Amino acid sequence: MRAKPACRDRVVPMLLAASDGLRDIGCDLYLVSVDAVDPDLIWVMEVWESKERHSSSLELPATKAAIGAAMPLLTGEFTGQELEVVGGLGG
Amino acid sequence: MRAKPACRDRVVPMLLAASDGLRDIGCDLYLVSVDAVDPDLIWVMEVWESKERHSSSLELPATKAAIGAAMPLLTGEFTGQELEVVGGLGG
Repeated sequence: MRAKPACRDRVVPMLLAASDGLRDIGCDLYLVSVDAVDPDLIWVMEVWESKERHSSSLELPATKAAIGAAMPLLTGEFTGQELEVVGGLGG
Repeated sequence: MRAKPACRDRVVPMLLAASDGLRDIGCDLYLVSVDAVDPDLIWVMEVWESKERHSSSLELPATKAAIGAAMPLLTGEFTGQELEVVGGLGG
């Protein structure tokens, strides 16, 4: 996702705060990263037990509130890639 | 990375085999995934203790042998994105 200029460092703590309790609702991995080059780009990598558990998480009031709070700081440019994890270290 | 047609399922086990021993050389996460849509696309997400430890890993004979073995099964189309992990669950 792309933050509005100079807003990235306000969005990142919001994303990190959202990681509390994720494991209990089926999330195995939730990594927040910043782009090494682009100062406004934020990357979130998530691994979920199932597509259904991820979908359910988006319906939680806490999730909706977090998205609503972050949205004014973002440009609205989102890209995503859906993958199927097959294994590895930490997978 | 993109596998040549019908080669993906031969490349994936090679990538998974390469995960043995990675933790000992500074790798925190190494996730092999296949694209949910494109049948030839393979994604590898890696988190390393430092850029230096990742660079060192590429010099290991075992790494070079693994890359050499997989290369004929790949088209040569690689894209990558360098990120700085700031935190999260499993990070």
